[in-house]
Amino acid sequence: MSEAAGRCLALSGGVGGAKLALGLSRVLPPEALTIVCNTADDFDHLGLRVCPDLDTVMYTLAGVSNRVTGWGQAHETWSFLEALSQLGGETWFRLGDRDLATHVERTRRLRNGESLTAVTDALCRALGVEAKVLPMTDDPVRTVVGTSGGELSFQHYFVRDRCAPAVTGFRFEGVDAARPAPDFLAALEEDATAVIVVCPSNPFVSVDPMLALPGVEAAFRNSPAPVIAVSPIVGGQAIKGPAAKMMEELQMPVTAAAVARHYRERDLLDGFVVDHADAGEAAEIEREGLPTLVTGTVMESLADRERLAREMLDFARSIAAPDRRP
Amino acid sequence: MSEAAGRCLALSGGVGGAKLALGLSRVLPPEALTIVCNTADDFDHLGLRVCPDLDTVMYTLAGVSNRVTGWGQAHETWSFLEALSQLGGETWFRLGDRDLATHVERTRRLRNGESLTAVTDALCRALGVEAKVLPMTDDPVRTVVGTSGGELSFQHYFVRDRCAPAVTGFRFEGVDAARPAPDFLAALEEDATAVIVVCPSNPFVSVDPMLALPGVEAAFRNSPAPVIAVSPIVGGQAIKGPAAKMMEELQMPVTAAAVARHYRERDLLDGFVVDHADAGEAAEIEREGLPTLVTGTVMESLADRERLAREMLDFARSIAAPDRRP
Repeated sequence: MSEAAGRCLALSGGVGGAKLALGLSRVLPPEALTIVCNTADDFDHLGLRVCPDLDTVMYTLAGVSNRVTGWGQAHETWSFLEALSQLGGETWFRLGDRDLATHVERTRRLRNGESLTAVTDALCRALGVEAKVLPMTDDPVRTVVGTSGGELSFQHYFVRDRCAPAVTGFRFEGVDAARPAPDFLAALEEDATAVIVVCPSNPFVSVDPMLALPGVEAAFRNSPAPVIAVSPIVGGQAIKGPAAKMMEELQMPVTAAAVARHYRERDLLDGFVVDHADAGEAAEIEREGLPTLVTGTVMESLADRERLAREMLDFARSIAAPDRRP
Repeated sequence: MSEAAGRCLALSGGVGGAKLALGLSRVLPPEALTIVCNTADDFDHLGLRVCPDLDTVMYTLAGVSNRVTGWGQAHETWSFLEALSQLGGETWFRLGDRDLATHVERTRRLRNGESLTAVTDALCRALGVEAKVLPMTDDPVRTVVGTSGGELSFQHYFVRDRCAPAVTGFRFEGVDAARPAPDFLAALEEDATAVIVVCPSNPFVSVDPMLALPGVEAAFRNSPAPVIAVSPIVGGQAIKGPAAKMMEELQMPVTAAAVARHYRERDLLDGFVVDHADAGEAAEIEREGLPTLVTGTVMESLADRERLAREMLDFARSIAAPDRRP
């Protein structure tokens, strides 16, 4: 896909999504890429607004992400957390000193009346990120994880309890009253959008919150641009995060095909991308009527990220104008 | 003064006051010492409540103060400020990574509805400070500095503009509606208080805000306990901070005697302490009817702090039951 071929709208959660977003940012001109990030795992901690997925994408595109932890910044120091611990403060959520600047500055600007869209844009510009990075909404939406032991806020489930509780379902508090961020809606509706990419992110807690925003699923179904998802499940495992564990606990087969079905049953996809490890499943998915690209989806190197981005864009271009309407 | 002789109530600003407070904390049992700190130079910065004098006293008593800067913590790192600078945030007020934990935790607790008294107590306990450290009030009072170029908030004058503007006067916004912190009032009124110490702090912006709180000057005048002030001016200079510069700009002689007069004209003192360098002035102050102790008041070592504390307490004990009422 060349610049003239239109814009790419990518939906991303954290690490996996950010890797593909980085690949896309390196094969597309900046003005041709919009990355919408899940904000349903945002939370207020120590009085600060923390936006893990936005930050992972922002730091990754800025080249300052911490590749060891998968969150936060590289070259980080931990004096704040040490001192906070001495003061008896809450330290289960690991906030590095550099990372903290993002949360303090964002919180200050939000309190000042700026939208999360505007704040994200300002932070990205300051860090030299050229692609447009957006929150899915400027309104508060919060994932609540149903578990066998009761409901948990997402970060309590994810970080504090290390995904140990067995999940029974999810709800996205506030989503019915939330509006997609204006630039997200615009990208969904504008003719210049040539492809919509669902990055290899957790279907339940990264992608579904974005899809649950009023109007987004309908926009996906009505979009003239093909919608392509990249499977976060490779060879029956999640590259990172609890997606595989969740699928098991939700009594789903832990397969790329099950991910495809998860989106397909809502008639949202025009194409799917799986890893070579799942070539067998690709045939099954195609039999069900969904064009499927088989390639290397495990992004270890920067070259991997760029190659997958390119192949995925070519694949999108190869798909005929979609007609998913009944 | 022995434990049985009653309690010491000390009023402190930042560095100079904290030095004497440390001395007092080492010669008195913890339950015999209450230190009230100026909060009129507190301010909200980046959405965080910063209390410079409370923190300097707390850090000093906890043994974690930064003796080079005179503010903040020792063994500090600066990653937060570096990252904030990259984000285009405000960096004129130097917040270290460790120091930041204090502000974040305090702000969180204040937003949670705790009083500044309660928060200060919790932070001090966490840091192992045994003496009682109090804010002068739980209500907002803010020093506004009148300058030849107009009014400035205190931290803009003090830190951002490095005390460069010539001062014309001061007002303490909110002071008329503020109540002294309950434990401050109680210490002023209780019989067990055997001495009230005005530490060698800036008379205009550290001590006067405390005195301006409703009822405090009257309590000083009515107190059966002697009120002793230690001069922050030694040999015509301030050991630290803008006191001398301010006196000059306010057309006052830059002398210990002028400091004594500043408090005496309001009939607040029963005794005064000056440095050997000002022995000549001591005679002048005594002629005006105020008992004056001449000793070494420049506190370089820990031993200096302890010695001055002891001598000052002995001096207080030597002063007859005060009768300053007309």
